[in-house]
Amino acid sequence: MPAFAVNRIAVLGLGLIGGSLLQRLAGVADVVGYDNDPDTRAAASSVPGAVISDTVADAVRGADLVVLAVPLTAADAVLAQMSHYDGLLTDVTSVKAPARELARRHCPDASWVGGHPMAGTEHSGFAAAFAALFDGAAWVLCLDEDTQLDAWLTIADLLTGLGARVVPSTSEDHDRAVARISHLPHLAAAGLAEGAADGALGPLALSLAASSFRDGTRVAATRVELMAAMCGNNASALGEELDKLIARLIEAREILLSSSPEAGLAEWFIPGHEVRAAWPTTAGPLRTVPAERQALLEIGRNGGWITAVQGNAVSAT
Amino acid sequence: MPAFAVNRIAVLGLGLIGGSLLQRLAGVADVVGYDNDPDTRAAASSVPGAVISDTVADAVRGADLVVLAVPLTAADAVLAQMSHYDGLLTDVTSVKAPARELARRHCPDASWVGGHPMAGTEHSGFAAAFAALFDGAAWVLCLDEDTQLDAWLTIADLLTGLGARVVPSTSEDHDRAVARISHLPHLAAAGLAEGAADGALGPLALSLAASSFRDGTRVAATRVELMAAMCGNNASALGEELDKLIARLIEAREILLSSSPEAGLAEWFIPGHEVRAAWPTTAGPLRTVPAERQALLEIGRNGGWITAVQGNAVSAT
Repeated sequence: MPAFAVNRIAVLGLGLIGGSLLQRLAGVADVVGYDNDPDTRAAASSVPGAVISDTVADAVRGADLVVLAVPLTAADAVLAQMSHYDGLLTDVTSVKAPARELARRHCPDASWVGGHPMAGTEHSGFAAAFAALFDGAAWVLCLDEDTQLDAWLTIADLLTGLGARVVPSTSEDHDRAVARISHLPHLAAAGLAEGAADGALGPLALSLAASSFRDGTRVAATRVELMAAMCGNNASALGEELDKLIARLIEAREILLSSSPEAGLAEWFIPGHEVRAAWPTTAGPLRTVPAERQALLEIGRNGGWITAVQGNAVSAT
Repeated sequence: MPAFAVNRIAVLGLGLIGGSLLQRLAGVADVVGYDNDPDTRAAASSVPGAVISDTVADAVRGADLVVLAVPLTAADAVLAQMSHYDGLLTDVTSVKAPARELARRHCPDASWVGGHPMAGTEHSGFAAAFAALFDGAAWVLCLDEDTQLDAWLTIADLLTGLGARVVPSTSEDHDRAVARISHLPHLAAAGLAEGAADGALGPLALSLAASSFRDGTRVAATRVELMAAMCGNNASALGEELDKLIARLIEAREILLSSSPEAGLAEWFIPGHEVRAAWPTTAGPLRTVPAERQALLEIGRNGGWITAVQGNAVSAT
């Protein structure tokens, strides 16, 4: 069994993710919330069963697990207020390498396990939070060389209990994967939206815009600060994926200049079409896997996830 | 009043658009449908009030308005079977310049008005058709120098009566606008989907993919032939818009390589974010506009549309 007991959980930051987690945990666990915004604290006080603290120190005192749910830009300031904390520490930011560095620097005694629930929407803030946000959502938990396996399993146990699909990954693989499926779509969305409005043709184009535009640009409505932080903090991995996208688009550009663009594009579209038509993949059969580092990482690498932690084994698909 | 009387409408091609139009018109107009696929004809025969013909010639005989609702690749063959037709002729293809050339060549006596309902989904075929597809949808009707204004107004009258927002535009402006808001999003979607699946990281990336990926790549699930035809037939306009998107992405790439990517991206994201956050614009107040060529085109160019045709004037927003 995991060596860590979780009797009290502190959620620091009560935006969409933290607020939803507070609502989900309230009533089923001993949970304390904190946010630096007084209005958010006041709103969160109405959640039955949740205690709201006015300071980071008060929220963290007596907690066995701290969930850092502030944007990466605010993480530095919050972690600096809890440098003596020595329990379990996880987060929800969308880039794992910089969060890990901050946690190591400010809270060297804490047992850090980087986390990332894949459950954002284009809305932000406590007003958009809801307890069911994580039902069936993938929640990455990073299992790096220096991650304590017991700490990892304890948090995985908690999160699978909340209905999340826990995906084991290294921080590096996570950052490269989300560059592809989250950060790059934000760049493409903003680029498409900006281009649609360009010049004298903009009003006509935007009035003709229908579902292709609506969906292809939806995430560009996300707050600029959030997009800049997640993309900017993952610059290296995102840059590599962006290079590949640009290369693919340049290939399409050359086809458009060729003598038979329709035939060329009929080839060009195939790989992307096949990937999207086959997504999302359905879950494989449930199986039991030993709770060992390499075996766990293998589950994530193969596109699977963990549905429950059972002693020294996990249920995985 | 429009000089053309529409007593009988033929819909040629009963896929998503043509099938939906047949269902919408059946019962409120005298409508005949044709499709080259016997199974589709059989399925369409069950629509109450619609007559289904086995040949193009039968369907067109006696019609005052023919709606060509086949993909551009099939338009040549269908138009060649109705070269003596001399009534109103419109279409629903997503690129207007090539459709116009085909219509002129095959049916020189017909009164051609290029059309394009902005109402596709990623699904195709009669099985996906439904009568409400055009409710509130933008439906471009091209008003080129050689378009007969009376023919244009007759079709606009019919389409506004079906609940569509009729947008007057030239063929050239239409093709450039849809390159931006429809064709380019398909290229981006396919590029993003292909990249997500790349190499050993593919299974992990696709299992983490959530709503950003889902929406940003949705249209890549469209049939490859349809995507290749609409993009390939709009190669010139699409190529120019693609160049601009690539330039924007290269700018983002340079920012990612800079010493302060987060700050740079916070600037880069602003224009796209603002466009998307303000979309869709709400309709302006209804006003009456004389049914004259330049006044009508001005409505479309300003992002407006026509809600009704009334004699020598239109209601527009």
